[in-house]
Amino acid sequence: MSYLDRIFAANTHRLDGYLPFLVDGIRVGCVSHGFAETLSQWPEVFRIKDRHIALAADLEPAGVPVAERTRAVGEVLERLRERGLIDGWRDELYPVNRTWSEPAGLLIERAAVPWFGVRGYGVHMNGYVREPDGMRMWVARRSLTKPTGPGKLDQMVAGGQPANIGLRENMIKECEEEAGIPPKFAGRVCAVGAISYALETSIGFRPDLIFNFDLELPGDFSPVNTDGEVEDFYLWPMERVMETVRESDAFKFNCALVVIDFLVRHGHIAADDPEYSEIVEGLFARPEFPPGW
Amino acid sequence: MSYLDRIFAANTHRLDGYLPFLVDGIRVGCVSHGFAETLSQWPEVFRIKDRHIALAADLEPAGVPVAERTRAVGEVLERLRERGLIDGWRDELYPVNRTWSEPAGLLIERAAVPWFGVRGYGVHMNGYVREPDGMRMWVARRSLTKPTGPGKLDQMVAGGQPANIGLRENMIKECEEEAGIPPKFAGRVCAVGAISYALETSIGFRPDLIFNFDLELPGDFSPVNTDGEVEDFYLWPMERVMETVRESDAFKFNCALVVIDFLVRHGHIAADDPEYSEIVEGLFARPEFPPGW
Repeated sequence: MSYLDRIFAANTHRLDGYLPFLVDGIRVGCVSHGFAETLSQWPEVFRIKDRHIALAADLEPAGVPVAERTRAVGEVLERLRERGLIDGWRDELYPVNRTWSEPAGLLIERAAVPWFGVRGYGVHMNGYVREPDGMRMWVARRSLTKPTGPGKLDQMVAGGQPANIGLRENMIKECEEEAGIPPKFAGRVCAVGAISYALETSIGFRPDLIFNFDLELPGDFSPVNTDGEVEDFYLWPMERVMETVRESDAFKFNCALVVIDFLVRHGHIAADDPEYSEIVEGLFARPEFPPGW
Repeated sequence: MSYLDRIFAANTHRLDGYLPFLVDGIRVGCVSHGFAETLSQWPEVFRIKDRHIALAADLEPAGVPVAERTRAVGEVLERLRERGLIDGWRDELYPVNRTWSEPAGLLIERAAVPWFGVRGYGVHMNGYVREPDGMRMWVARRSLTKPTGPGKLDQMVAGGQPANIGLRENMIKECEEEAGIPPKFAGRVCAVGAISYALETSIGFRPDLIFNFDLELPGDFSPVNTDGEVEDFYLWPMERVMETVRESDAFKFNCALVVIDFLVRHGHIAADDPEYSEIVEGLFARPEFPPGW
């Protein structure tokens, strides 16, 4: 097994079974034919053609407020939640756009994001310690009751990125909730880039974008989980982190990529590794949409 | 002006004026219709169809040694050099592949790389110094006699990456040649990732991949150019580097992207910069080939 296997595992998109989802005439996601059929029950909200799905004519014009679209789509999603189709409801609104920096013409509940094949956003932080004998990384084991990836290894701190909070503010908030990192340390988190991937799941397509942060911690700090999302924390030498990512799928699929990005940026993967350029380029998946979108 | 303007400047590909160039049945580049017409004068080397250009039937089979293909194509390129079409000859062979890690089915002279629209590879190194009052970066001004980007700002050390030398070995060699950095310092260069872009030039298409290295230097070291390629070196506070990249095109177009990657990795661009995700994603251009390639 290799680092590349982790990247391949996170990039399984085919996209031939989907309809493009358009907002403001821009493709922002994709919807399975089955889910499109379900949405067709609300013609006052969604307009389905043979080649794509968009908002209904009353909601689509540029002048319609984002809040109005969000409310109309949200009511459909609530019905689907009641029917038990959409589960894992979070009460967090995510922007529907091609990349985080772009204005969003619609917000949708986080749990619905993969159903619409729109980008999901997250903030992940690798906490590390420099010791005289080398670098160590804090690794979290996800709670066994988590709906996704129970018991899998994770970053020290990671969370979803809803629309109504800045990336840094969210990261610092998660530091406190997930690992009990006080603001005096959390304030030192450093934004260091992002990774992206395109995963096909049983629900739909996930062309996610994860913002990566680094945080160097003093050797005498120990994390304490406060929100029940973490089973345990481990402080591992980099060699153990590297071997675990390379030789197993113990890390949650997207957390593995965030670790690999850390390894690349900190020079832990040699330039002459035979897979180096594929690893580095593989950390930025660009979902390729079928022709004609 | 903004960091994004630098990224836009390096990504100008349209690709509608090109024929795909295939080796071993894989698209590895693209050739302008005019250059394809020129190459059609050697039907024993190139086979041109209406939808693509490939090696001639005698050279294409998988069993043909790479050296034989390389020699046959090289003879054509020598003729084009004699005619004055291909200039800036370097006597360096570049691999023809989709990414550096991939085996190359053909090698071509560096000066011909943009003519065939195949990936060009390079190694660029940002040298920096940590001072009590903040970080400084070494910036080079390119020699006024350089064929590309004379007088433009550049990394402290940068060079092309030919096929017959490892990335790290090449980087260390360039450190000595370009900046007189002795092996005791150059040996500390740290591979930290890559950037890619897709630029259309008057010659052809450049979907290049640049490997980035960092090197922290002691405050009392001063670079000395030994190969005549550098006009001058400056040690600038990061604020000046940032302003120069953001507000001007003083840096050579691809060197600007390597600086921006450094700024991202070292936390000099805030996560909540309104263009953050576009900047981070923009540093990895994936040339999108037209449908049907």
